[in-house]
Amino acid sequence: MSDTLSIVMFSGTADKLHAGATLAAGAAAMGRPVNILLQYWALDAFRAERVEVDHGLAYDSMAPGASKPVDGTKAIPWLDTFRMAKELGEMSIYACSGSLEVLGIDIADLDPLVDAAGGIATFLMTAEDGQVLFI
Amino acid sequence: MSDTLSIVMFSGTADKLHAGATLAAGAAAMGRPVNILLQYWALDAFRAERVEVDHGLAYDSMAPGASKPVDGTKAIPWLDTFRMAKELGEMSIYACSGSLEVLGIDIADLDPLVDAAGGIATFLMTAEDGQVLFI
Amino acid sequence: MSDTLSIVMFSGTADKLHAGATLAAGAAAMGRPVNILLQYWALDAFRAERVEVDHGLAYDSMAPGASKPVDGTKAIPWLDTFRMAKELGEMSIYACSGSLEVLGIDIADLDPLVDAAGGIATFLMTAEDGQVLFI
Repeated sequence: MSDTLSIVMFSGTADKLHAGATLAAGAAAMGRPVNILLQYWALDAFRAERVEVDHGLAYDSMAPGASKPVDGTKAIPWLDTFRMAKELGEMSIYACSGSLEVLGIDIADLDPLVDAAGGIATFLMTAEDGQVLFI
Repeated sequence: MSDTLSIVMFSGTADKLHAGATLAAGAAAMGRPVNILLQYWALDAFRAERVEVDHGLAYDSMAPGASKPVDGTKAIPWLDTFRMAKELGEMSIYACSGSLEVLGIDIADLDPLVDAAGGIATFLMTAEDGQVLFI
Repeated sequence: MSDTLSIVMFSGTADKLHAGATLAAGAAAMGRPVNILLQYWALDAFRAERVEVDHGLAYDSMAPGASKPVDGTKAIPWLDTFRMAKELGEMSIYACSGSLEVLGIDIADLDPLVDAAGGIATFLMTAEDGQVLFI
């Protein structure tokens, strides 16, 4: 079976983007191809004009007594970790064409780390029979 | 290995329901069997009396500067896309018996798109060794 | 291929912890090895001093007209279900070393159900080519 790791990256908070990026980097470091489809809020986080802002934390972080990120949310290196994953191995990042349309985003407005627009069919075909995560 | 795509559909916001529905429809269009288990808020969204309301967006959408759905949240066609997936191929939608109990929902109160109640064991057996997503 | 079920457990609300625990218990009951990596808010929920508090529900539960857990949130037996999964079969729970660092948590402060600290590479290697979920 395929050893490609495929991730539908839906969430746009720094912690979940970081979780996705570390899984991508881990797989890339092991020599596995990585196939990422950006949807909705993850796609929105990759807009060039927003990529460096503080993307906040998941709702779960607001529970009473929850721990706080030691160095603050802004320091969570999700974008750098995606960059590193791309340098480490073979990783493609596609912007979901359906989500681009729903949110009215132009592919030209995204960070250059994004390779191209792509649909669900292309994503599933690239994933083949390998592992797929939804984050 | 099995080419069935299995999805534990947990989330109840329109954007995540839509993400699940488009993956289901994409797999069905490719001739793959689709196996869905509705838990918690996705199950709650399939109650017949709620299925047409505005199910809102994930918490991530509230980030400062986030994009908005161009046609509004109510226009995100998650239910139509699940219907289409069922017409396109072989898709079963089960209501998790544990979640029905926790939320006090009767199977008779769900939209007719839901086939039956089912448990985790049945879901995992139907998934066989194919891809599984949690949304 | 491997029949191990691997779960990146990221979310820290009682409903999502419960969803992860029931999948883990279901797989364990079927004789499958279960491999869990705790990240961020799921890791935080396993701190010994917080493990028994009310961990609340996902943001989706706040939608207008949403159902409520019949016996309240505190009664959702996520920790007991993880305990049961461990008694039923072969389950390992690792605390993500990256998340421990980001949140400033010491491994000694976690519930004894957590076996050890571990990284992404170990998680992916243990997962082999089996099913992987992100919750």
